[in-house]
Amino acid sequence: MDAATERQPDELEVRTEEGVVSLVLNRPETRNALSRTLLGRLEETLDAIEADPTARVVVLGAHGPVFCAGHDLSEMTNRSEAEYRDLFAACSRVMLQLRRLPQPVIARVQGMATAAGCQLVAACDLAVASTEARFATPGVKIGLFCTTPMVPLVRAIPDKAAMEMLLTGAAISAERALALGLVNRVVAAGELDLTIQELTAAILAMSPLVIRLGKRAFYELRDLDEPAAYARAVEVMTDNALRHDAQEGFAAFLQKRRPVWTGD
Amino acid sequence: MDAATERQPDELEVRTEEGVVSLVLNRPETRNALSRTLLGRLEETLDAIEADPTARVVVLGAHGPVFCAGHDLSEMTNRSEAEYRDLFAACSRVMLQLRRLPQPVIARVQGMATAAGCQLVAACDLAVASTEARFATPGVKIGLFCTTPMVPLVRAIPDKAAMEMLLTGAAISAERALALGLVNRVVAAGELDLTIQELTAAILAMSPLVIRLGKRAFYELRDLDEPAAYARAVEVMTDNALRHDAQEGFAAFLQKRRPVWTGD
Amino acid sequence: MDAATERQPDELEVRTEEGVVSLVLNRPETRNALSRTLLGRLEETLDAIEADPTARVVVLGAHGPVFCAGHDLSEMTNRSEAEYRDLFAACSRVMLQLRRLPQPVIARVQGMATAAGCQLVAACDLAVASTEARFATPGVKIGLFCTTPMVPLVRAIPDKAAMEMLLTGAAISAERALALGLVNRVVAAGELDLTIQELTAAILAMSPLVIRLGKRAFYELRDLDEPAAYARAVEVMTDNALRHDAQEGFAAFLQKRRPVWTGD
Repeated sequence: MDAATERQPDELEVRTEEGVVSLVLNRPETRNALSRTLLGRLEETLDAIEADPTARVVVLGAHGPVFCAGHDLSEMTNRSEAEYRDLFAACSRVMLQLRRLPQPVIARVQGMATAAGCQLVAACDLAVASTEARFATPGVKIGLFCTTPMVPLVRAIPDKAAMEMLLTGAAISAERALALGLVNRVVAAGELDLTIQELTAAILAMSPLVIRLGKRAFYELRDLDEPAAYARAVEVMTDNALRHDAQEGFAAFLQKRRPVWTGD
Repeated sequence: MDAATERQPDELEVRTEEGVVSLVLNRPETRNALSRTLLGRLEETLDAIEADPTARVVVLGAHGPVFCAGHDLSEMTNRSEAEYRDLFAACSRVMLQLRRLPQPVIARVQGMATAAGCQLVAACDLAVASTEARFATPGVKIGLFCTTPMVPLVRAIPDKAAMEMLLTGAAISAERALALGLVNRVVAAGELDLTIQELTAAILAMSPLVIRLGKRAFYELRDLDEPAAYARAVEVMTDNALRHDAQEGFAAFLQKRRPVWTGD
Repeated sequence: MDAATERQPDELEVRTEEGVVSLVLNRPETRNALSRTLLGRLEETLDAIEADPTARVVVLGAHGPVFCAGHDLSEMTNRSEAEYRDLFAACSRVMLQLRRLPQPVIARVQGMATAAGCQLVAACDLAVASTEARFATPGVKIGLFCTTPMVPLVRAIPDKAAMEMLLTGAAISAERALALGLVNRVVAAGELDLTIQELTAAILAMSPLVIRLGKRAFYELRDLDEPAAYARAVEVMTDNALRHDAQEGFAAFLQKRRPVWTGD
């Protein structure tokens, strides 16, 4: 193989198998740091997934011992205001994209998740951690408070626990992350894939249309006051009930058979 | 007894004893499904309780092995848009009524609570569950995402835990519900009534006026930003301090005697 | 010493040592009740701390077996509307001041914290409790619902747990407070100071500028919806990255040396 045609190893591995899209951060030599390039790759990949009706659920994992160490420090020194804003805005777009993506996203956390890496976990819809995973927002230690990571973190865990992580930079264990609500499950490293598979199988069994309607409503309703949330929820649920997949679901349940979803 | 005069068994049992109103869902043969009729009964009953100054606290329980299975599926198939909207709006009115009711409402959860049944638990002010209770929002399995149930659920438990329940439809145990904040206590089935009684007795010992002021302020202040919440709280508390029952409470405390509330 | 020159013992002890300001409630004979005078002392002291660049972190503790029993009941009886409003507004100003103070504030809870005393704990950024500490909002028992204490309490712990404390006035243990998120750590009474010291040492090692930027952003972003929070967070983080202390932090990290903060 000649050097000119040798492919750059991909910073983000993307594999799709039966509706499950696996995104794997693949910069283990930099602790999977979210370089500007990698953020761009994530953004374009999530755009493609959003437009792909065969993609049903996304698993976001990482190669190597570390899940993700956040921004790439080598890209952080002596930059202009415009460059910093571009970097943090790109990162925030990816995080908001995870929320807005029609498909559920499950973080597969096999190791340490720090700063924007911890934010990735907080921004995913679900998260499964190995017992070896740890979580930290240590930017304060190098003079850059984890301000954007804080946005989904304070929405995932209680205030005082978030404040301690942010002010001290100290890491919490997977078990503590579970107790706080940052992850859904903690399992032995060897059981990570099986647990993820249980969750993806559960989601694959549902109507993709209904999953999409539901995930969108979740983040929309959460930020409204309660009466406004109910008013909107009634409209979403009425729309849902009129769809083929709801009528099919009711019929299948009453007939004690499996539903056949059409997804429209 | 002739068939024409035979009374329909009441879908909602209502008993009042010394200020405690017990509402008992009484459709065990349908897993206490919230039919349109039952929702209407709940709405009119809560209206009556709201207007009844002798009603001091409400306990919402259920007959049979299931607490409540949510909507009545037999009423869900092949309906018009107007009918679905009417059903979901009626259900949402009942849930908001639980919040707005001047009296505290305690859910007595003796068994499975699913979909709008789980929502009932989330929408009550307090909840006591038996160790046999379980909680789920499984609408997604039959093609109808639990969108209205999600409204109080995401306000009761952490986001990721709520999302898992909503996307997978899987049930959680009473113990998990306690850890997440969905219920206040988990006790053996045989201790359910005693535990409820401890809570109702505590509330009955208070001034009904002060309980009413406090419950209303709770839901009002929760949806404001913190400085606005404080500004409003100062007004509520000043009003409270000027009432007879506050002055009586201060005096009784200083005189080491029981207060005698007048409730105005 | 003649009686005329005998100093009134100070209701609030203030000691500063190497950047750590210790505020100690010193009215043990009244269970450290927050008299109007003591609230005034707290307000002026917090104002002074805010303006003092050498003050880096605040520890709020108390003398005697009780942390703080809330308002001074002797000041509550037969007052005018203006007097009540003044008292509750002064108390709310102190609580909001704790949030707005540039320096982190850690509650050192050695005993019972009730009503506005429990609110103090909820309003601090971090809290460490001894195993003997307990927490309650018992105002309802004397006819005055803990409405202002509720404001930070519902932001610290789950709704149903807060509602139970507020409606019944019952106390929760330090362990329960930890599980709910009201405190960060529970330790034996003899280890309280060591644990506080670990937290203050961690904060002292950081850039004061960055701690200040971060704490301010925490409370600002928490009350925004998520996209608005991200938009604001990008600006805060860009500003942070351009500061000397961030550039110094990056350089020190890459050079594997301790950073030297200038704080501007």
